[in-house]
Amino acid sequence: MTRNDALALDAQDPLAALREQFVLPSGVLYLDGNSLGVMPKATAARVQQVVTQEWGVGLIRSWNSAGWITLPQRVGDKIARLVGAAPGELVVADSTSVNLFKVLSAALNITAADAPQRKTILSERSNFPTDLYIAEALCRERGFELQLAEPDELPGLLNERTAVLMLTHVNYRSGRMHDMAALTAAAHAAGALTVWDLAHSAGAVPVDLHGADADFAIGCGYKYLNGGPGAPAFVWAHPRHAGRFWQPLAGWMGHAAPFEFTPGYRPADGISRYLCGTPAVLSLAALECGVDTVLAAEAHSQGRGGMAALRAKSLALTRLFAERVQAGCPQLSLVSPSDDAMRGSQVCLTHPEIGYPVIQALIARGVIGDFRAPDVLRFGFTPLYLRFVDAWDAAEHLRQVLASGEWQRPEFRQRHAVT
Amino acid sequence: MTRNDALALDAQDPLAALREQFVLPSGVLYLDGNSLGVMPKATAARVQQVVTQEWGVGLIRSWNSAGWITLPQRVGDKIARLVGAAPGELVVADSTSVNLFKVLSAALNITAADAPQRKTILSERSNFPTDLYIAEALCRERGFELQLAEPDELPGLLNERTAVLMLTHVNYRSGRMHDMAALTAAAHAAGALTVWDLAHSAGAVPVDLHGADADFAIGCGYKYLNGGPGAPAFVWAHPRHAGRFWQPLAGWMGHAAPFEFTPGYRPADGISRYLCGTPAVLSLAALECGVDTVLAAEAHSQGRGGMAALRAKSLALTRLFAERVQAGCPQLSLVSPSDDAMRGSQVCLTHPEIGYPVIQALIARGVIGDFRAPDVLRFGFTPLYLRFVDAWDAAEHLRQVLASGEWQRPEFRQRHAVT
Repeated sequence: MTRNDALALDAQDPLAALREQFVLPSGVLYLDGNSLGVMPKATAARVQQVVTQEWGVGLIRSWNSAGWITLPQRVGDKIARLVGAAPGELVVADSTSVNLFKVLSAALNITAADAPQRKTILSERSNFPTDLYIAEALCRERGFELQLAEPDELPGLLNERTAVLMLTHVNYRSGRMHDMAALTAAAHAAGALTVWDLAHSAGAVPVDLHGADADFAIGCGYKYLNGGPGAPAFVWAHPRHAGRFWQPLAGWMGHAAPFEFTPGYRPADGISRYLCGTPAVLSLAALECGVDTVLAAEAHSQGRGGMAALRAKSLALTRLFAERVQAGCPQLSLVSPSDDAMRGSQVCLTHPEIGYPVIQALIARGVIGDFRAPDVLRFGFTPLYLRFVDAWDAAEHLRQVLASGEWQRPEFRQRHAVT
Repeated sequence: MTRNDALALDAQDPLAALREQFVLPSGVLYLDGNSLGVMPKATAARVQQVVTQEWGVGLIRSWNSAGWITLPQRVGDKIARLVGAAPGELVVADSTSVNLFKVLSAALNITAADAPQRKTILSERSNFPTDLYIAEALCRERGFELQLAEPDELPGLLNERTAVLMLTHVNYRSGRMHDMAALTAAAHAAGALTVWDLAHSAGAVPVDLHGADADFAIGCGYKYLNGGPGAPAFVWAHPRHAGRFWQPLAGWMGHAAPFEFTPGYRPADGISRYLCGTPAVLSLAALECGVDTVLAAEAHSQGRGGMAALRAKSLALTRLFAERVQAGCPQLSLVSPSDDAMRGSQVCLTHPEIGYPVIQALIARGVIGDFRAPDVLRFGFTPLYLRFVDAWDAAEHLRQVLASGEWQRPEFRQRHAVT
């Protein structure tokens, strides 16, 4: 594979035009869309419209006239199309952490009612920490136990004590993707419920919540959905569960009739009971622009479906990058799976010592990946705006950083608050 | 009081220049800043900068370079100045409802440790519903009881069973303000903790959390702080409590070292443990602009202090409006207190039948107040941008709407999703 080969792939790419939806700063090769997606061109104007017109002029009237009050459902319906959920089943609200608290609370309530002998939440040892923290806190409160294991051990640990199998579909640190359908089936066979965190999946890989018969799901708005820094998150519950319990964050926006101002809590029908406080309108408007950039892939998918087309390109991009790095950077070990079926939309490498300064040296070159303590160099590939030549160039930059020894400069050892 | 008298008051008003900080749509007389504050002029440019520069160009790097990661604390320190809290004691995060869940959880944890026989949360029957819903949910989970009473009954109900006195400082429906210091002292004398919701206080009336020796407080960003629709909320804990327990929304941003990605939860020191998920950067930036508009009062306060100066004007505005309405609209009853010491920054009126269409008729005239079911006509007065002549004119519009019978038009009976 030469650089010209990569350019040739770009020339044939049916999704190439999607890149035009984004502002891509010059001199930057951005491989961190799995941490913060880039800004869609539409966002600035839309946010400005919300601020100066809907808020500035419409003021309180815009809750009705601009449809603010239904934004959580409207944007939720769009995200639902990306994750195999039906309209009306998914809402945008709060953060991923807060939404995990809601669905895990609901799952434990269902367990307490239906199978009170089940006392374990089973998860992956290297699951994203906030998921483990939330689960740990809930376990402590509710008298459950959090059991952590390696991915391959999970099916064997599902048993009559398991209340919930709680997993992040694509692991943030390794890029490894679980087989959602198989693990959900195994959990159900053992009598357990499933909670899926789609933080690194929604907009990145095809997800079929109904096809997998999942129970609950949550996900993030600011990664592959390009919703902007701190964009609100989303929450889905299978219809068989959504109306059955209310979650303890019983705020007024999850009430059946919030503007009746009645003192007793009466949850809304279905997923809307997973709303809590007043919707974050500015952030929701920005998120909608981001979700639209992913939905736009449908029109370029040549009949395969938007997410399927994005997935094919994503796999080709990560394969190209991983192969180039393995050829040019023998110092680094590949930790993301080389098996396409097990790999999300990122490539993860390790080095026992120099990962942090190597990433800093790359960032100084404008090649932005990130470092995940203690030893992972992480590169996210967003097929909406990355080209094959970008994957080729990024691998070459990484090779040069290592070969030249420029990572050894003292400034690249300086630690930042956020890595 | 004639209209010319009102104009004369405006001419002498030392705070008059503060109005220049805002975009006030023509033809609108806005008396709903207690529901959604108006847009500061600075906000549009600041939000645009965050979107196009900090996000669009800086991308993930802005967590460090633009200081995104410390926004919850930075904006929190500014709000702290308005509510009698010290720097480092208050953070911006999530919604009011979610923050209430956090502090109420912490208060119940403290109770369980120190006084397990205390099993009651005492609150006001007409407290804002979301506060009651959250308390109801927590009581159910933790085996506590929610006891509701009328304001005057509260001191007599504090006893050896009371765990927490949970109140909204200024009642959303009546405008009545509790004596925070006296009720906190009474609660403490009975051995109970206090949780204060400052939704209708922060930026509206002087609040002195330390002076009152309060235990916990939360508040809203989109009312008198002018942070924009769905702006994030804030949370404060007295330093004697802040580090003692962690709240169950144990997300990674409340961790002592979020970017070490360690599996066990270790809470940050102090109030930062009340953070949960990733900060909503766009909304936080807008909120900071809003908070700045209130802090600006200091420079015009003639040495009285910004909030004291705003309070003096607010009382004069609400007094003027209430007196004019009582003189011109005998059909309406005043439910907000006429005693200055007991009145927040709003005037509330009732009519047993026609409140809703009267408010709609006023809105059609550009005089925007709101209706709170079942029977309250509510008018918020924000001294930052309202003039005495606005109060005078609003009362005159109300008189005309009633005298002319125009509220009887069928379109004013049409119900909207948000009232």
